[in-house]
Amino acid sequence: MSRSRKIYLAGSRSDVRVPMREVALSGGEPPLVLYDTSGPYTDPDTRTDIKRGLPPLRLPWVRGRGDVEELPGPTSQYRRQRDEDPLLGGVRFASVRRPLRARPGKVVTQMHYARRGEVTPEMEFVALREGMDAAFVRDEVARGRAIIPSNINHPESEPMIIGRKFLVKINANIGNSAVASSIDEEVEKMTWAIRWGADTVMDLSTGKNIHETREWILRNSPVPIGTVPIYQALEKVGGKAEDLTWDLYRDTLIEQAEQGVDYFTIHAGVLLRYVPLTAKRVTGIVSRGGSIMAKWCLSHHQESFLYTHFREICEIMAAYDIAFSLGDGLRPGSSADANDEAQFAELDTLGELTKVAWEHDVQVMIEGPGHVPMHLIKENMDRQLEVCHEAPFYTLGPLTTDVAPGYDHITSAIGAAMIGWFGTAMLCYVTPKEHLGLPNRKDVKDGVIAYKIAAHAADIAKGHPRAREWDDALSKARFEFRWEDQFNLSLDPETAREFHDETLPAEGAKVAHFCSMCGPKFCSMKITQEVREYAAQQGVAAETVALAQGLREKAEEFRKGGGEIYRAT
Amino acid sequence: MSRSRKIYLAGSRSDVRVPMREVALSGGEPPLVLYDTSGPYTDPDTRTDIKRGLPPLRLPWVRGRGDVEELPGPTSQYRRQRDEDPLLGGVRFASVRRPLRARPGKVVTQMHYARRGEVTPEMEFVALREGMDAAFVRDEVARGRAIIPSNINHPESEPMIIGRKFLVKINANIGNSAVASSIDEEVEKMTWAIRWGADTVMDLSTGKNIHETREWILRNSPVPIGTVPIYQALEKVGGKAEDLTWDLYRDTLIEQAEQGVDYFTIHAGVLLRYVPLTAKRVTGIVSRGGSIMAKWCLSHHQESFLYTHFREICEIMAAYDIAFSLGDGLRPGSSADANDEAQFAELDTLGELTKVAWEHDVQVMIEGPGHVPMHLIKENMDRQLEVCHEAPFYTLGPLTTDVAPGYDHITSAIGAAMIGWFGTAMLCYVTPKEHLGLPNRKDVKDGVIAYKIAAHAADIAKGHPRAREWDDALSKARFEFRWEDQFNLSLDPETAREFHDETLPAEGAKVAHFCSMCGPKFCSMKITQEVREYAAQQGVAAETVALAQGLREKAEEFRKGGGEIYRAT
Repeated sequence: MSRSRKIYLAGSRSDVRVPMREVALSGGEPPLVLYDTSGPYTDPDTRTDIKRGLPPLRLPWVRGRGDVEELPGPTSQYRRQRDEDPLLGGVRFASVRRPLRARPGKVVTQMHYARRGEVTPEMEFVALREGMDAAFVRDEVARGRAIIPSNINHPESEPMIIGRKFLVKINANIGNSAVASSIDEEVEKMTWAIRWGADTVMDLSTGKNIHETREWILRNSPVPIGTVPIYQALEKVGGKAEDLTWDLYRDTLIEQAEQGVDYFTIHAGVLLRYVPLTAKRVTGIVSRGGSIMAKWCLSHHQESFLYTHFREICEIMAAYDIAFSLGDGLRPGSSADANDEAQFAELDTLGELTKVAWEHDVQVMIEGPGHVPMHLIKENMDRQLEVCHEAPFYTLGPLTTDVAPGYDHITSAIGAAMIGWFGTAMLCYVTPKEHLGLPNRKDVKDGVIAYKIAAHAADIAKGHPRAREWDDALSKARFEFRWEDQFNLSLDPETAREFHDETLPAEGAKVAHFCSMCGPKFCSMKITQEVREYAAQQGVAAETVALAQGLREKAEEFRKGGGEIYRAT
Repeated sequence: MSRSRKIYLAGSRSDVRVPMREVALSGGEPPLVLYDTSGPYTDPDTRTDIKRGLPPLRLPWVRGRGDVEELPGPTSQYRRQRDEDPLLGGVRFASVRRPLRARPGKVVTQMHYARRGEVTPEMEFVALREGMDAAFVRDEVARGRAIIPSNINHPESEPMIIGRKFLVKINANIGNSAVASSIDEEVEKMTWAIRWGADTVMDLSTGKNIHETREWILRNSPVPIGTVPIYQALEKVGGKAEDLTWDLYRDTLIEQAEQGVDYFTIHAGVLLRYVPLTAKRVTGIVSRGGSIMAKWCLSHHQESFLYTHFREICEIMAAYDIAFSLGDGLRPGSSADANDEAQFAELDTLGELTKVAWEHDVQVMIEGPGHVPMHLIKENMDRQLEVCHEAPFYTLGPLTTDVAPGYDHITSAIGAAMIGWFGTAMLCYVTPKEHLGLPNRKDVKDGVIAYKIAAHAADIAKGHPRAREWDDALSKARFEFRWEDQFNLSLDPETAREFHDETLPAEGAKVAHFCSMCGPKFCSMKITQEVREYAAQQGVAAETVALAQGLREKAEEFRKGGGEIYRAT
């Protein structure tokens, strides 16, 4: 039924092939080409096998630059233990590829290449995908205003860019917890999320087999994968935040870097002196990472190792091209706490850390709230741009009210659309299960769709050159009663078709010049078309314009005369 | 399970009893009192019977003013035919009450009383409901900045106010079409819509037995009912717009006025000279009323009878206290057509008509779009306030993008929340079925909930004194793991509870200090509470503040020195 097909835009070299979705239209309309995050899974010409993973598309580009070395094996201690544990045979991904790392003294980040003036294949890919100039992409990356998350150990990923001059992106969170979910479910959630439009996926697993779950996800993911390494580190110390150490955390970073994680959320801005600022809050600290670090700081009476070892972290990130997602550990957890001193104090620190990361040519984005009433949203964006030197902003919603648990994809889509318009580069989705439980497949889809709506509404409001095309094509199809085109152009063709068919299931209804909302006699679009036809036949259009002219003069007379309104004709 | 109960706020006279919903809380928290639209149906002490209708609460107030007369019977010709038709016995509501009308020379509108300086029981009811001063309510109504839709023939309605200084209201559309639905279903949709929070309901029926369907709805509705009389008029002429006449339309107004319809959508601003302005649009005219009138105007080569007979219409409205909802027949039907010349030309005319209505002491609100990208929303509000002299604005969404049929409750909740914040007084809901089919029970609920979210988010952003209370109560319950309170305070307690129970069904989990999202070890709120306890026990709070002070000084030193970040401690 669907008339979409996968196409590829050709780049300057044969292995730069940018996937897009082409929607064929009827009525003599040209096909519409849309951005496509779904990866090889939707290409009938590509065979995918979850057990083997996706083809390493970017490997030749990474190796071709001559600045990486293949390691004899993983260098993380924890990874080695896991690899040697015979009990994990059943859950382990049968990976054979050895990890890559920058050769000593080399920096392998897209920011580094951009600053040297190079247009990498990744940049060219992104430029084609966005319909932008490759030099512009390079300049935005060099300037720190956009990032291309692309760990050299995740060559399966199709390059994408996060920056406010580009299409607004969305992230979908997945991951198990101690009380729910399995590896299979998480891999399925990832492929399901990208099918509906997730641009990146964060694996926030905190339950069993975190390492192995992530490996399966990475090897099968065509979109960048983000994580919050402190979650796994905490799991390694049995959940006792005060037992966390720099060494253990460092090994976790290396473990994940060599697997291919593309960006790390790091809550390095939670400083000891900011913790008391949260004491009077209605909802204290609601970021898991933030609360873990706050506990560590208070227990040890010192600044966190994330802050004190920040430059070492930068060096690790630079050696694999992992982007920072500087976490907002002190983000507000309720309307009452929005835009408070704790939140903005941390933001200032994130701005300082951004400059440090940039010294190392490491790409950076900044995480933002959370829970913010509409009238306080813009201040978040304006301050972030100012104090974080225009590094891309990546917000969680924000939720604009707290009274609708079960519907927080909607409370937050409102805030997300607005902050996206104001300049946020990526929106982290919120599912209907937020605050209540772990999202299932349906929740993931509902969250992704709500956020595609928010992101696209923002793109239109920002005036992105390509955004309106899509709306216009759908509106035109609607007006011309091209029902099949209307379904195929929808964000969710299946649901649109299903809803239509609920009341008018006959195939004939899909060519009908009305629908069940109004029935044939009350269809405004049908009447409008009759009006147009009538006008054309009778030559009324021109006549009416003339008449309008006459009436306008009369109306002015009438207004001047101050007469009664129904004397106007 | 729910700990909500119906309470009544007492007014100055014994029959002014304002229904509210009181939510009992645990943990020593005082109960929260919320606005309640659900009517007597949720009062266990009131017996309701759909066949008898609701008690005529306002009848003593209306009669007590001494300015109405009881008619011997309905004066509409059409109504008399229907009443005499033996075939309609099965669908007719067994009404016995005779219609009321203003005595000759009298005006019975709330605006009229307000301008005379009177505080009516309706105004007092509204003031208690909103937590505002009654004199303020009166002044806003007198000024035309707010309306209290209250047809003297709909005494079952609980007074409510629509104006931008008050809580943002929402309307739910129901109504059958030629291809779907029955009377029972429509009455059920009405009671279902108000249960979830609809402040008014529009009956947009265009199918069979429109008159009788409306009677059942009115007699059972505790909220104001709006209609678009041209729909029924068109049905009476077999769907041929050009056959409509003033006499037939007038009889329809009287028919509905004597039934008790509280506000009429009247598309009197569709002028002949504006029709050609829609010719180049992507989606022409998408308002049913607008397209009907455009067709009539073109066919007859004259201004519509809605415009030429506008003062007569005002006289009818004044005799029953029906409010105008001046229809935006030329509203945009797509992003492409937003804020165009046709739309704004009509708005200017609606502003002129507002003044005419006010000359007759008739209450007025103005309908607004529709489909508007975010960056064009504010202009709509600003122009409406200016050219319509601050008469309340009543918008349909607006939808902020056209690419998501099946999810237009979300595309439009974004626009609705924004325009509500900017000053729109009532938001007409959009259901997930918009553009695809007639809403069913589930769609009605989804639409109402999405719009309650939008309206409440707007109330918070506008700084309505009562709005934040609700959020704060829920946030506090969340932070303190009072799960039952969290559910009971939710916009939709059933869904919140159900979502929670999906992953952690045990009753014990509802007192647990974590949920399935993160599990016990990763719960940020649990950790924060531990941090607070730890700090309290150790006297760390004070110490940390002192430490913070020291650190701040050090940090300044460090910044001045331009040193490396990890030397700060």
